[in-house]
Amino acid sequence: MKKYVLSEKDTPTQWYNIVPDLPRPLLPPLHPVTHEPATAADLEPLLPRAVIEQEMSAERWIDIPEPVQELYRIWRPSPLYRANRLEKALDTPARIYFKYEAVSPAGSHKPNTAVPQVYYNSVEGVKRVTTETGAGQWGSALSFAGSLFGIDVTVYMVKASFQQKPHRHSLMETWGAEVFPSPSTRTQAGRKILAEEPDSPGSLGIAISEAVEDALAHDDTKFALGSAMNHVVLHQTIIGLEARKQFELAEDYPDVVIGCVGGGSNYSGLAFPFMADKLAGHRDTRFIAAEPAACPTLTRGKLTYDYPDVAGLGPLLHMRTVGHGFIPAPIHAGGLRFHGDAPTLCLLHDDGHVEARAYNQNEVFTEAVRFARSEGFVMAPESSHALRGAVAEALAAKEAGEARTILFGFSGHGHFDMGAYDAFLAGKLEDYELPQEEIDAALADLPTIATT
Amino acid sequence: MKKYVLSEKDTPTQWYNIVPDLPRPLLPPLHPVTHEPATAADLEPLLPRAVIEQEMSAERWIDIPEPVQELYRIWRPSPLYRANRLEKALDTPARIYFKYEAVSPAGSHKPNTAVPQVYYNSVEGVKRVTTETGAGQWGSALSFAGSLFGIDVTVYMVKASFQQKPHRHSLMETWGAEVFPSPSTRTQAGRKILAEEPDSPGSLGIAISEAVEDALAHDDTKFALGSAMNHVVLHQTIIGLEARKQFELAEDYPDVVIGCVGGGSNYSGLAFPFMADKLAGHRDTRFIAAEPAACPTLTRGKLTYDYPDVAGLGPLLHMRTVGHGFIPAPIHAGGLRFHGDAPTLCLLHDDGHVEARAYNQNEVFTEAVRFARSEGFVMAPESSHALRGAVAEALAAKEAGEARTILFGFSGHGHFDMGAYDAFLAGKLEDYELPQEEIDAALADLPTIATT
Repeated sequence: MKKYVLSEKDTPTQWYNIVPDLPRPLLPPLHPVTHEPATAADLEPLLPRAVIEQEMSAERWIDIPEPVQELYRIWRPSPLYRANRLEKALDTPARIYFKYEAVSPAGSHKPNTAVPQVYYNSVEGVKRVTTETGAGQWGSALSFAGSLFGIDVTVYMVKASFQQKPHRHSLMETWGAEVFPSPSTRTQAGRKILAEEPDSPGSLGIAISEAVEDALAHDDTKFALGSAMNHVVLHQTIIGLEARKQFELAEDYPDVVIGCVGGGSNYSGLAFPFMADKLAGHRDTRFIAAEPAACPTLTRGKLTYDYPDVAGLGPLLHMRTVGHGFIPAPIHAGGLRFHGDAPTLCLLHDDGHVEARAYNQNEVFTEAVRFARSEGFVMAPESSHALRGAVAEALAAKEAGEARTILFGFSGHGHFDMGAYDAFLAGKLEDYELPQEEIDAALADLPTIATT
Repeated sequence: MKKYVLSEKDTPTQWYNIVPDLPRPLLPPLHPVTHEPATAADLEPLLPRAVIEQEMSAERWIDIPEPVQELYRIWRPSPLYRANRLEKALDTPARIYFKYEAVSPAGSHKPNTAVPQVYYNSVEGVKRVTTETGAGQWGSALSFAGSLFGIDVTVYMVKASFQQKPHRHSLMETWGAEVFPSPSTRTQAGRKILAEEPDSPGSLGIAISEAVEDALAHDDTKFALGSAMNHVVLHQTIIGLEARKQFELAEDYPDVVIGCVGGGSNYSGLAFPFMADKLAGHRDTRFIAAEPAACPTLTRGKLTYDYPDVAGLGPLLHMRTVGHGFIPAPIHAGGLRFHGDAPTLCLLHDDGHVEARAYNQNEVFTEAVRFARSEGFVMAPESSHALRGAVAEALAAKEAGEARTILFGFSGHGHFDMGAYDAFLAGKLEDYELPQEEIDAALADLPTIATT
């Protein structure tokens, strides 16, 4: 196992915004009621002005504020590893690299955007930030960031994950946040769901509705989103920018870049700095998005305008979606249970720049355990989807007798997912077949909006 | 928060053995039955020959084998951090540094010795290694190391911790180890305890007896100890050797070095490379060992020969002990529930080179939460004892108006200890008053061995 460590002076000081480099213009977010392009004023009740500016920016490079750079240094630059031992276990001629984001205090890539989001809120005098969380990685990250800036954090955690991972909310509480299982009785959105389905396992779409409603109801409170939107993807490009420099140290360059996709920010953050090389015609890299078969947005969803949340409070995004009312099965990769994806990633997928694969739970845990026993690190179920994709590529390289260079994103550790490992090792992990009718039913419910 | 990262080429390639530099000769381990100095042949049923050689070595510097150096690189060199944000929270003129060992795949300093121990076993053809574990940090580390070398690992885990931390054994099982709560019915030692006290919470002393008995009963099996003995301390000096070089980068030097003490290897590993400077007369550093009030070996124990285990199967060590039959209260810092300490550390404590402090659970968790909210990292209850000592020093520096430089060991993360954080945040964490009679009773049971 070889490790490539960037020196602090080589650490990026700007984020990369892919919007101006996209092959065609991105369709804008729309106001949830008027269906007109959302203005900055529309978003101001939800987000701080600096974040809205980034959301709408067409600048290619955006400076990382000095206080954010300083806090990034707690865990960044994160290492890039060559997984020699896994290569040997697979007996493949492929070179497998992974970018290891589990070194952050919250254990994943999520603080890359939580820290700047809370920073901009603090600069603008916001006192409290609300959010949703699935597996808890995002809620943990925002709680951590809140404690750094002395800002209160309220987290609506998808109930299925709240119950699967009791220690995730203890972690958020240790950082001083308040955490509620969602659907909760604290919001209209939550109460409505509970009235219809008292045992609802929740979904990211429901939790977002609750967090948005809470923020809108309080003047000193804003909302923070953990994925999908442009500004979140922007902040996450620190991952790929570092990785790109680390590949220079390794004197190599990826033929394939693979990541897991929930809302798409982790994967886009890793992939877009390499995608820039491809879009500029310098490279012919392949990009593979790995998603759960239980929530197959890219592989089985529809590209259209949809709400980010169940109650339709957030701006409509043009994305590939299985429908905002879709409730995925309670898989352990809770962070991947989002019904849509980042519009930038969806556009690139639609144009053939990104391939997608859907995987089931048992096959991803099989690889996670093999990885733990070869490379040592125990990864989150979400990241294991990326690993599954990387192993498939490595085995294809073996079949073809090619020395392919593979990069995948190790987005977070699995220290709060051992219950899932338990279930897998005991042979009790469920795979889910998702009937097309379920997706069709959720998609039937979308607003019809002309995009030409 | 400032981070000092060593480059790979500055990483130490030798361990430091303090034995030749001690102010007086170390009393040797004794055979548990004959009470004669243990010979290499005595130890061979338990330990590989290379380890026995290190245990008895008087060489100051011992080469780290190349395969071990390569595996160390997975997580080493570990960062040294300046805790500026904690300093600010305490409003102290002190400079507080911590050495962050939580970056290893197993989450603590323990792989520093687990990897070489398993390596030497593998070289000598051993097929299986048994061990004890308290909180689970050591068992996890050995399981991780076992998976790297394809060696089977059997872990006897103190029952109190097994129950407090169900996910610790899932972690070990993910790496392929088998884990049993101790006392178990698998050994005579375990069955004897269970017959006397069916609800025994277990202790490190009991778990060691079980692991030793299991190893002695099988020809292809050896035992691995996670602390206390010279070879373990030796391997852990990688921590302090790195830290010493990192202080050169910081252009600083610690006035006080603080660590938590269970069996003493974590603290000795951090402290001894600095202690060498003191013993050579170059520095006047103070050394503070922080232990739990529930198992106060240095502050209230007796310096004498004692067994490392309840059943008296292991070699007698000359150490400060509260008695091998002593069962500490089931505190969450399970890794500190050992009745004795490393003989080298005890000798230095006896000669006045090391001070000791005992802390209760609530005060250490108070600091762990303050630390999480200022520096971001959530630490293990064990490490929180070191932090508690560091905060006391920082506040004393403030009182005295001195810019003291403090180094403490962040030995492991608390990701598997969130149940303890829960209990603390809910005000349900118990402090324990330990009556002197309990210690006296356990000490009354020791063999009488002349040491002059």
